[in-house]
Amino acid sequence: MYSIFDYGDMIVDRVRMEAYTQAVRQAVKPGAIVIDLGAGSGLFTLLACKFGAARVYAIEYNNAIQVAREMAAANGYADRITFIQELSTRVSLPERADVIISDLRGVLPLLEQHIPSLLDARERLLAPGGVLIPQRDTLWAALLSAPAHYERHFRPWQDDLFGLNTQACSRLLANAWRRVDITAEELLVEPQCWATLDYRTVREPNLTGELNWKIASPGTAHGLGLWFDATLADGVQFSNAPGNPKMIYGRAYFPWPQPVELAAGDEVVVRVQANLVDNDYIWSWNTRVFAAENSAKSKIDFQQSTFFSAPLSPQHLRKRADNFVPSLNDDGQITQVVLHKMSEKQALGDIARDLTQQFPQHFPTWPAALTRVGELSLLYSE
Amino acid sequence: MYSIFDYGDMIVDRVRMEAYTQAVRQAVKPGAIVIDLGAGSGLFTLLACKFGAARVYAIEYNNAIQVAREMAAANGYADRITFIQELSTRVSLPERADVIISDLRGVLPLLEQHIPSLLDARERLLAPGGVLIPQRDTLWAALLSAPAHYERHFRPWQDDLFGLNTQACSRLLANAWRRVDITAEELLVEPQCWATLDYRTVREPNLTGELNWKIASPGTAHGLGLWFDATLADGVQFSNAPGNPKMIYGRAYFPWPQPVELAAGDEVVVRVQANLVDNDYIWSWNTRVFAAENSAKSKIDFQQSTFFSAPLSPQHLRKRADNFVPSLNDDGQITQVVLHKMSEKQALGDIARDLTQQFPQHFPTWPAALTRVGELSLLYSE
Repeated sequence: MYSIFDYGDMIVDRVRMEAYTQAVRQAVKPGAIVIDLGAGSGLFTLLACKFGAARVYAIEYNNAIQVAREMAAANGYADRITFIQELSTRVSLPERADVIISDLRGVLPLLEQHIPSLLDARERLLAPGGVLIPQRDTLWAALLSAPAHYERHFRPWQDDLFGLNTQACSRLLANAWRRVDITAEELLVEPQCWATLDYRTVREPNLTGELNWKIASPGTAHGLGLWFDATLADGVQFSNAPGNPKMIYGRAYFPWPQPVELAAGDEVVVRVQANLVDNDYIWSWNTRVFAAENSAKSKIDFQQSTFFSAPLSPQHLRKRADNFVPSLNDDGQITQVVLHKMSEKQALGDIARDLTQQFPQHFPTWPAALTRVGELSLLYSE
Repeated sequence: MYSIFDYGDMIVDRVRMEAYTQAVRQAVKPGAIVIDLGAGSGLFTLLACKFGAARVYAIEYNNAIQVAREMAAANGYADRITFIQELSTRVSLPERADVIISDLRGVLPLLEQHIPSLLDARERLLAPGGVLIPQRDTLWAALLSAPAHYERHFRPWQDDLFGLNTQACSRLLANAWRRVDITAEELLVEPQCWATLDYRTVREPNLTGELNWKIASPGTAHGLGLWFDATLADGVQFSNAPGNPKMIYGRAYFPWPQPVELAAGDEVVVRVQANLVDNDYIWSWNTRVFAAENSAKSKIDFQQSTFFSAPLSPQHLRKRADNFVPSLNDDGQITQVVLHKMSEKQALGDIARDLTQQFPQHFPTWPAALTRVGELSLLYSE
């Protein structure tokens, strides 16, 4: 969940704000119906009003929507804005929108429910011929010669830790990527585009791309850098490429498990894959390096995936298995009681009183019980 | 939840690691029974084994415990360690410990359930005469002359944002503190200790302190800096004071809503209060400034509290009110069905099959339903 500081950082990023302002200005004609998808503190909503929108639906799940409400009132736009604190996939609107504005990206556009949310909004909430901002993102990659990133990634667990063996951590780290600041000097090869996300036509959240570099000048490679460029609207673009001013998105370092000496003439083939599983992307990056003199057999073969970056707990896996027969723990019993009473239309205060009687060791006081009941109500009530 | 990167950052902090290593070495006698409370990736656990512990109970709720398990095996200590993936307050042990090692702090030691967890462990799990690491933290504060922190805190919303009024955000920010890097040059006054947390004797998680400075040389003040110093064991200490090497904890900037010109002879009185409410601390910092020539009436009177830093949503408040009569949303109905079937001892796979029949629009496939059932099982089953 974003904090007020995060929203501040987004605004301080002037390249982003100016590009979005320009795109909104171009797209929002007087009288337009607009959706601000993931409205946050509501700045795009206010801009859409300023540029003449007849109505803006500001959809935001986070409490930040309350800031957006206050700012709308302070700027005299409250009567043109409908605030909806909900996930957009659960929202139905009385009319379709001429423009949908969003920025649900992270370091890369492949973040959680970004693409499914946009797909859903495009199909259900956008008018025929309506405009999506952003229009298109392109995904880029390059090989990096970046000892500093490599060191920072692996070093904590490679230093002499009092003579302890910390291999388990190194293995996890070799399968994890992180946000870093990549400079133009760290690029070992010409960047290549490995995928394009055209939001007007994209059909599914998963992406695969293949990269192929012929090494021109030798060097030590430490992995891949990934970033994206955006086309918000016709003629309105920004780039996160190394060498450009650093934006809020940043760039991603996908490490190799060890540095690789690349000779001139070597061929490097990388297959990048991003698959949305539940709410998170599993990233895989498989690398093969072929020497010029022997292109039949690869001299390097790395198979890396974020699937192996999170420690798997056997205890947790067992509890998720289809043949597991559970019995409820205390939290489960408490939640069951609360949901049952909610379905019987009891008021929260009465439910809390029951909890203090049924679970006195957990809820010595009525306010303590009401806190728990309130949390469950937030999640599970309409 | 901490990631593998966070654990790496903790280890890279050599001041911290060396102080902890020294304290563990001093406290753990051969044959000792040790608890590593919030063991994370298990480094303190391994150190305790190395220094001769007969048994270590490594308690960690996070999946990181799996890394700790692997590292224990790789270092030949597995047979001396009992791993427990659970919140410590829910754990009972067959014996009491001679030493409890923990580091549940954040920027400041007042973080979530840190103190309640330690209190509980001290009363239930520590042997009489047993040793707590850390032993004691002291909390410090100073007035800052730090235009850079002030600017960074408020500026995003004060710049000309296309002529929009963004007061609502400034008000939230004036009630929020953040982690920053405070230099010795930014101290406007001599730091004062406003509270001591002696873990051997502390009885409750809330703290209040009063600070009082007589201004010696004039300057512009922008708020308070807070940090802590630690005594891990007799003679083993570290300090987060500005001027010392930056540790993983950092320092906190508590802003004033506006810069204040302080004259020589002015008296500044600040009352700092930290109260644990549910799982988070509410911080209040109330400031009064008295001029030397008129000490009867304050010339400045700021009342700030993180209570006002989070946007409150009326919709959410309504759903938590004691007179609110809820009806279950879809998620609530799904959870109710799953808990009911769990209490009837059905296997997860069977419960998932029922979900696909009862809620086909939510669970078009059995794996989708099993994912949800598995998540609920993790939370609510034993």
